[in-house]
Amino acid sequence: MKPRRVRIMGVGRYLPKRKVTAEELDQRLGLEKGWVAKKSGVMVRHFVDGETNSQMGALAAKEALKEAGLTLSDIDCIVCASGTSEQAIPCNAALIYKELDPEHTGIPAFDVNATCLSFLTAFDHLSYLIDSGRYRYILLISSEIASIGLNWNHKESCALFGDGAAAVVIGPASEDEPSCILSSRMETYTQGAHLSEIRGGGTRYHPRTYQDSLHLEDFLFYMDGEAIFRLSAKVLPSFMKRLLPDSITLQDIKLVIPHQASIMAMRLMQKRLRISPEQMFIFSQEIGNTIAASIPMGIYEAVKRQRIKRGDLVMLVGTAAGLSVGGMIFVY
Amino acid sequence: MKPRRVRIMGVGRYLPKRKVTAEELDQRLGLEKGWVAKKSGVMVRHFVDGETNSQMGALAAKEALKEAGLTLSDIDCIVCASGTSEQAIPCNAALIYKELDPEHTGIPAFDVNATCLSFLTAFDHLSYLIDSGRYRYILLISSEIASIGLNWNHKESCALFGDGAAAVVIGPASEDEPSCILSSRMETYTQGAHLSEIRGGGTRYHPRTYQDSLHLEDFLFYMDGEAIFRLSAKVLPSFMKRLLPDSITLQDIKLVIPHQASIMAMRLMQKRLRISPEQMFIFSQEIGNTIAASIPMGIYEAVKRQRIKRGDLVMLVGTAAGLSVGGMIFVY
Repeated sequence: MKPRRVRIMGVGRYLPKRKVTAEELDQRLGLEKGWVAKKSGVMVRHFVDGETNSQMGALAAKEALKEAGLTLSDIDCIVCASGTSEQAIPCNAALIYKELDPEHTGIPAFDVNATCLSFLTAFDHLSYLIDSGRYRYILLISSEIASIGLNWNHKESCALFGDGAAAVVIGPASEDEPSCILSSRMETYTQGAHLSEIRGGGTRYHPRTYQDSLHLEDFLFYMDGEAIFRLSAKVLPSFMKRLLPDSITLQDIKLVIPHQASIMAMRLMQKRLRISPEQMFIFSQEIGNTIAASIPMGIYEAVKRQRIKRGDLVMLVGTAAGLSVGGMIFVY
Repeated sequence: MKPRRVRIMGVGRYLPKRKVTAEELDQRLGLEKGWVAKKSGVMVRHFVDGETNSQMGALAAKEALKEAGLTLSDIDCIVCASGTSEQAIPCNAALIYKELDPEHTGIPAFDVNATCLSFLTAFDHLSYLIDSGRYRYILLISSEIASIGLNWNHKESCALFGDGAAAVVIGPASEDEPSCILSSRMETYTQGAHLSEIRGGGTRYHPRTYQDSLHLEDFLFYMDGEAIFRLSAKVLPSFMKRLLPDSITLQDIKLVIPHQASIMAMRLMQKRLRISPEQMFIFSQEIGNTIAASIPMGIYEAVKRQRIKRGDLVMLVGTAAGLSVGGMIFVY
């Protein structure tokens, strides 16, 4: 794989104003005090209180543009990479574009969806369009509202998720900049296709069938966390070998930014993959699992907390419904 | 724009068994006999009768693979480019992959969504991954069930749509093959973001709000056909100029394959854009508007009816919710 000379120019984030503590969830779920904190490790998550996907996405995008020193008119393409959508039609990217500036026109806007790996997949593929010169600057946004689809009869999943948005501007790296993508990879294992899902809401169980549905839970998020962990644990070690180029060892990586699926699962995976505790970036104690926004939020946190600086080797890695595993190694 | 040496290796299609005639729709809509045929020009469309998006997509994909002389194991990436999805989670591509062969594992699978322009957008962007050598063969599938989301109080839109799937395998063109992509472009005009939409089904109006919704029609397809036509007609002439490379005139194009939004609108647009009747490929009289599957169905029909042969210049063009306009010029 030839390195792609692509650089993250700016990062942005938005978290909904309403904070929901682990104790509040204990109460809502009718559990003993401390269950959510102990089981999930997520002490606080944010749930929308009126905010929409497009509003959150636009706010994150504005911060990323400002950080990159660019305006909307510099952008050649707007991509929303999210697992949830605001409307069935049109795509999220068009709604975020309208929210960013209703007077602005002409930038192509579309969505990429690989649930929790949407951002990684879009970043990976769109980097080729920058490297080839098709586009100069791309605005990549993940904006997620998990809370509305949670099944409050299923305490394990309710304990994990949060809402929020993150955005990055990617562009070409100049000759004197070290930034580049060295490796990226995705693999799908469909024996896990139904281990995490929302069966309803599409054409299989259309919303118009909701009222006469015998299975109202079809419209809510379902996951078998243990089975997902078993399949991921089986697949990830050899996946990591295929992801790492010959010239790089795991020890060379400054920071591993995993999708923050579950803090407990990340810690187990860290040991299994022989990643050191110092390399593994677990930051979701006050955010939760924000679906596809999780990885770009990790990049945001890593930059803001100065856990990575220009020239550092970074690994992104995660799993998604499908079941898919994905990863990328890049020089920040 | 440097030509991308990418070739359509094989095409496939699936149409649901149940045919719905214009007369049947006249009756269902309580209209005088002949209204649907006259207004839409669509004499027959196919509605699913038990078929799912993933089943239709897999059947179209199998035909495309067979035509390309390839098997699933030759494929490096599976992309579903559709405006409708089978489930809210996971993505369509994973479900189609599972349907194609539940024992097969490891091929990355994800979705691209730009509603009616999903196929064109995915074809455009993924061609860079083939041109760069990242992937050799990509299976691109559009599978659409429009019928479940139609609003039967809105006769204009009900008259237009049909269900179905189409698939192509794309791969690298060898030195002695003329196939390549010469130009491609997409532009989004968000003043039209709400001219065609389904407001519900996502996080804005979640399916769980269906039963207490004051606006059940929020969960069904809405369009303002006239306003869409006005905006498209304003934008498309200059878009076409930007799409055409300096070295090519409209007269050089052997066949224009438009998104089959509406037969009447296509005929008007053909005159406005000074495309000759012989160049304009209107084939949806017995299919209808199958959303994103419409353009690859056009490629399928053009190949099967021998309207295009290897070496011919072809233009794809269309509009989508967003409102987006998109186009591509390639050598078949």
